[in-house]
Amino acid sequence: MELKENKFEQIKYLLSEKRYIEVQRTLAELNEVDIAEFLESESAQNAILMFRMLPKSMAAEVFTLLPKEQQSRFIAAATDKELVSILDEIFLDDMVDIVEEMPANVVKKILKNTGSEERMLINQFLKYPKDSAGSLMTIEYVDLKKDMTVKQALDYIRKIGLESETIYTCYVTDKNRVLEGFISLKELVLADEDKKIEQIFNKEYICVNTHDDQEKVAFTFKKYGFLALPVVDNENRLIGIITVDDIMDVMEQEATEDFQRMAGMQPNEETYLETGIFKLAKHRIGWLLLLMVSETFTGTIIERYTHLLASMTILTAFIPMLMDTGGNSGSQSSTLIIRGLATGEIELKDWKKVFFKELGISVLVGFTLGLFSFLKSVFLGGRNPMVALTVGATLVATVSVAKITGGILPIIAKKLKLDPAIMAGPLITTIVDTVSLIIYFKIATVLCAGMF
Amino acid sequence: MELKENKFEQIKYLLSEKRYIEVQRTLAELNEVDIAEFLESESAQNAILMFRMLPKSMAAEVFTLLPKEQQSRFIAAATDKELVSILDEIFLDDMVDIVEEMPANVVKKILKNTGSEERMLINQFLKYPKDSAGSLMTIEYVDLKKDMTVKQALDYIRKIGLESETIYTCYVTDKNRVLEGFISLKELVLADEDKKIEQIFNKEYICVNTHDDQEKVAFTFKKYGFLALPVVDNENRLIGIITVDDIMDVMEQEATEDFQRMAGMQPNEETYLETGIFKLAKHRIGWLLLLMVSETFTGTIIERYTHLLASMTILTAFIPMLMDTGGNSGSQSSTLIIRGLATGEIELKDWKKVFFKELGISVLVGFTLGLFSFLKSVFLGGRNPMVALTVGATLVATVSVAKITGGILPIIAKKLKLDPAIMAGPLITTIVDTVSLIIYFKIATVLCAGMF
Repeated sequence: MELKENKFEQIKYLLSEKRYIEVQRTLAELNEVDIAEFLESESAQNAILMFRMLPKSMAAEVFTLLPKEQQSRFIAAATDKELVSILDEIFLDDMVDIVEEMPANVVKKILKNTGSEERMLINQFLKYPKDSAGSLMTIEYVDLKKDMTVKQALDYIRKIGLESETIYTCYVTDKNRVLEGFISLKELVLADEDKKIEQIFNKEYICVNTHDDQEKVAFTFKKYGFLALPVVDNENRLIGIITVDDIMDVMEQEATEDFQRMAGMQPNEETYLETGIFKLAKHRIGWLLLLMVSETFTGTIIERYTHLLASMTILTAFIPMLMDTGGNSGSQSSTLIIRGLATGEIELKDWKKVFFKELGISVLVGFTLGLFSFLKSVFLGGRNPMVALTVGATLVATVSVAKITGGILPIIAKKLKLDPAIMAGPLITTIVDTVSLIIYFKIATVLCAGMF
Repeated sequence: MELKENKFEQIKYLLSEKRYIEVQRTLAELNEVDIAEFLESESAQNAILMFRMLPKSMAAEVFTLLPKEQQSRFIAAATDKELVSILDEIFLDDMVDIVEEMPANVVKKILKNTGSEERMLINQFLKYPKDSAGSLMTIEYVDLKKDMTVKQALDYIRKIGLESETIYTCYVTDKNRVLEGFISLKELVLADEDKKIEQIFNKEYICVNTHDDQEKVAFTFKKYGFLALPVVDNENRLIGIITVDDIMDVMEQEATEDFQRMAGMQPNEETYLETGIFKLAKHRIGWLLLLMVSETFTGTIIERYTHLLASMTILTAFIPMLMDTGGNSGSQSSTLIIRGLATGEIELKDWKKVFFKELGISVLVGFTLGLFSFLKSVFLGGRNPMVALTVGATLVATVSVAKITGGILPIIAKKLKLDPAIMAGPLITTIVDTVSLIIYFKIATVLCAGMF
């Protein structure tokens, strides 16, 4: 890593000395990811200067890694000839991403400089639903035929390999492009050169459909540990492939979305630092308002019991603790269940197991907290035992309601085809608040009746 | 997928008819992951029967995919000869995982049936810290020398390839095993056979140290999109490699741990359904108790203002709403910052940006909620305008405190080398509760002073 930093310093020095040939040589020794990071940190002018020095194949990859503002600046600065040479090297899936995100004038310049066939493909790709397998795939794959020999297959790979996103998994298709199976480069390299593909390829394959959701695709990758997955249409024709590096981004993005939804926000695909405060505020305010209005119930309940609170003001002092403990208990359960549903570990049919598990945990946790609170209030706080008993009993009931609600609501949401992640902390807390206040006042009315 | 289910049905039928040769043939056509899933769902007796029918190479992989109870049952049932033949085929990293998780008597049987060299390696691997690169890596990689030709390299790969976890990235080392660079199989296959490795291998490489944390390893994979990463010791000697399929599990596990910590639980590596209620309860109760005790502060504050609440009972009705809105606002901010720190998007040096962003959002969100609440209380609720103003002003202050605390505390935790994920919803809520109650009563004392 330090080596890399040294190179950056060296390049900066060479640039300031205008020793461009050495700059070019040093840049070519670096990894594309690091170059992109370096260009991002440099002035716009230097960045464009260095970008133009990159070998064609590197330039394309560096370009796809840059933030979109810099991409559009580079496109604006590029001549038509430069643009054609970069665009030629970019894989179709990255190209589609770029076209989707760039402002209209930049897109126009891009499309002017791509061939008509590629333009047609881009348009076709743009039609796949967002977050579908179709929108993730690329069409630069290696397809083999059954009657090829291993030697022929390897020669073919040598011919088209450079333009393929991966050559490590090759797909076998029939004359109508229908997928018949796959063979890994490992198997090819280790096999006898004269064998026919037919004899050695794997006929049992896992594939996804162009319209499958990216969450399902990520799940399949994780389950089978593949490096690439074929994407087929409804007639089982091979349309494209998805590679594992793109899936790592999907996994991270899906987890981030769940984090956001579970904290009561609209998911945001941009990064935090890149997003403006108006957009961030907009994504947060909806749920806050909704939950704030829902809390009107708690106010109504408290008002109904004003006489009780007025004669026993001490009861008010426990309200925040009771409500927060309930909220926290519910969040714990809902978080585990939402995450389990997301990773595929928990399924709808497990609802009974979840119910009884949360019931058992409620008893253990509820009684421990209730007893602790009772003893602490009486012996350390010097409270009236009846008040302490009211608080302790409410804790047992609240924790139980919270844990069972938190455990079951995400499953119900999934059953109703809603995103289980909305049944998280904020919403559970609001529900549990109302229920726990009612329980609290009911118990207080019974236990503390003689004390008014 | 349906095809697969049909095969399972077919196998069950063949089994019941005792047509074992056909069972064997049908099993061999399936993917190892699916076979493992199928064995899991079958009776112990049938599972062992079918497991014994699998070809040796498949048996090893299926074995590593089974749940640990089934693994130890299979080991118990296996003859020494069978065990040797399975253990021979298992990659070292999987073997170490198995030894770590099995009960002592099973481990004894395993170690009895492994060679002394392998036993030494296992012991050495067990010494790497949990969640370190060393504990994730495997030693079955392809190492090349600079003076080999491409043809020699490919022949060497054909020779040792079957026993390597991946042949797609090959590493170039000197005579002291010091890592010098790497070359991909793609580059080898596409290169001229007579070229020397020296002329074409990549000297700029990214590697991790055996003691690096798995989170850093996952981050490096994600950043560079590699299929494998070399692991070196402090003298830069190549010790092993980590492959991308293992990293997908790490990514999922790290995200799950963050979800658990952020909901105030001790992280649990077992799945929810596999974990008993006592363990689940134990993991949850610590934080709940701590937070419950911390809420004593809110009780103390409320008691100090009993006179105010007694004369204006209406103020009590707003306490749950104020506290929940504060808690939710804080959770939103802390979730985004914790997640940003985890994915590497936000760094310590960004704290100022976060501060000003959250300040800006607080103003927007706080005033919107405050104004809405004021208007709703006065015009829909018919409240006294001074009470409504007190609530509205408290909302502005609470949302601001919550958002800034939620934004900055995770960064401070990271700076102090604590896990930022503990500065999430539950803890932020407890802090914000106390602050918001103080603000509420202070404002009420001033604004509603004339109304006692």
